[in-house]
Amino acid sequence: MREDIPVFGDVAEAHERIRNYVHRTPVLTSSSINQIFNTSLFFKCENFQKVGAFKFRGATNAILSLSEEEKSRGVGTHSSGNHAAALCLAARMQGIPAYIVMPRTAPEIKKIAVKSYGGIITYCEPTLEAREKGMEEVVARTGCTFVPSYNHRNIICGQGTAAKELIEDTGELDVVAAPIGGGGLMSGTAISTRGLLPGARVIAVEPAGADDAYRSFLSGKIVPSINPQTIADGLLTSLGDLTFRVLKEHLDEVVTVTEESIVAAMRLLWERMKIVVEPSGAVPLAAILEKKIDAGGKRVGLILSGGNVDLSRLPFKT
Amino acid sequence: MREDIPVFGDVAEAHERIRNYVHRTPVLTSSSINQIFNTSLFFKCENFQKVGAFKFRGATNAILSLSEEEKSRGVGTHSSGNHAAALCLAARMQGIPAYIVMPRTAPEIKKIAVKSYGGIITYCEPTLEAREKGMEEVVARTGCTFVPSYNHRNIICGQGTAAKELIEDTGELDVVAAPIGGGGLMSGTAISTRGLLPGARVIAVEPAGADDAYRSFLSGKIVPSINPQTIADGLLTSLGDLTFRVLKEHLDEVVTVTEESIVAAMRLLWERMKIVVEPSGAVPLAAILEKKIDAGGKRVGLILSGGNVDLSRLPFKT
Repeated sequence: MREDIPVFGDVAEAHERIRNYVHRTPVLTSSSINQIFNTSLFFKCENFQKVGAFKFRGATNAILSLSEEEKSRGVGTHSSGNHAAALCLAARMQGIPAYIVMPRTAPEIKKIAVKSYGGIITYCEPTLEAREKGMEEVVARTGCTFVPSYNHRNIICGQGTAAKELIEDTGELDVVAAPIGGGGLMSGTAISTRGLLPGARVIAVEPAGADDAYRSFLSGKIVPSINPQTIADGLLTSLGDLTFRVLKEHLDEVVTVTEESIVAAMRLLWERMKIVVEPSGAVPLAAILEKKIDAGGKRVGLILSGGNVDLSRLPFKT
Repeated sequence: MREDIPVFGDVAEAHERIRNYVHRTPVLTSSSINQIFNTSLFFKCENFQKVGAFKFRGATNAILSLSEEEKSRGVGTHSSGNHAAALCLAARMQGIPAYIVMPRTAPEIKKIAVKSYGGIITYCEPTLEAREKGMEEVVARTGCTFVPSYNHRNIICGQGTAAKELIEDTGELDVVAAPIGGGGLMSGTAISTRGLLPGARVIAVEPAGADDAYRSFLSGKIVPSINPQTIADGLLTSLGDLTFRVLKEHLDEVVTVTEESIVAAMRLLWERMKIVVEPSGAVPLAAILEKKIDAGGKRVGLILSGGNVDLSRLPFKT
């Protein structure tokens, strides 16, 4: 029997569960950016979230949904990005261990981030198979609970709390847009928007160089992300079966944007709003730049998903 | 007869005058930065101010202090940095012209900024003499009022509103620190701090490579800034007679910081707080990094003075 997809009540419950542990991040506006595009944009600043990304919401919700006995054995994952860092900090805040399986070849900066949040690392070869096998071994050895990075209802509901807060703060919106990778954030965003603003358009934005979600919606079945090429390194993954089902139910549209627009949007956020946003987080604004979202005269909520960038390797040129 | 130095009542009047035109910028905190240094830091985010710097406060106050007749003839200055941009926007918001004298050799990015805010540019040779002569000619021709960038009571009182807001938001502080260049921001900060928190220490921070304020306080007379070398390009100027008199009255200490600390502080603000701060604005946090400010267990207010950086020329290395 197929699992029911989560509903808005589940997001609201997740919000009660996590609200004492996550930042209620600010919603910022920029009159100069609004003037440029003749619109009213509301930026939900998850770049200011703990560990610098919305991932902390889902990780915290997943951990707080465990039984005391499960908690005591800890949690684990084989992501090496923001989800791993988020799971480590969320685990540490609950006083439980976090086991992270990551490729030996992962960038040093990611290893340091995981260690700085107290994660216990097991290295593996740099293949998905090795990561999954490594994770199975860690689960067998420690009894920890595997927490996937997006295709899980507790993760989806946790991520949905960002859009819930956004809408609580802004009131009526015509459009809500977020980046889409595996679909965890986008699923939660769609559920919250449908729950609070049934009339609003829900738009997913992804890089043209990693347009598996776009193609999945065209074809009606999950098209895996094969050899994606984009600076938005948080959006490389394929949709999961649960996130795809949520999105088929609630999403109005997937639009794609170019690499040039992503960098231009990121630059606009840094220069005008003086905030650090990672390429993946700038993707929804890129869709405004490209006029892929009909924003003229409208009120548009955008989720700035994260702010973790390597400052010594930035994409800005003269 | 010497002009009286401004008092806190003058800053309070300036605040009433400008409060409908300037952003009341947020005061941010970072639990991770506080943990690193075992202190409680309160960052007054003037990088989020209009035109990206506190300069907008002083420029607005100077303009709103003019008579209607003076206003109609416009304002002018020969700064090419944040003050020029601030004066242009403040003038445009009041519907009056702003005349900017700037060297032909000024960076293109600064010319564009001034033009984008509607400034009317007169180019001159790149010497202080040529700038002053150019300004005199513009004043003679247009009848505009010259608005200096720091050594003026209306500028000082406008800049002081940042610290006033900071303290109104935080309550009791043990230390208030700001960067010092010409001393406009620092003078206003000192007046507001003495007015609201008579017991707090008031500390000015400057780059060791532009330590004219430090040497001025040692010698008791203004030591000009000659060939300063620092990445903090907002802090190159010498003190003025009025700012020096205010600071002799109110300042507890000037401390200096290295270039390495300035870049490290800037990086910490970008990486941990996800905010864009210019080198000059990171200078007070550099003093915390170097332990030049006794911050352990204390509540410390720091003014992040601005966020205008050229993103294609950042100082971060691996």
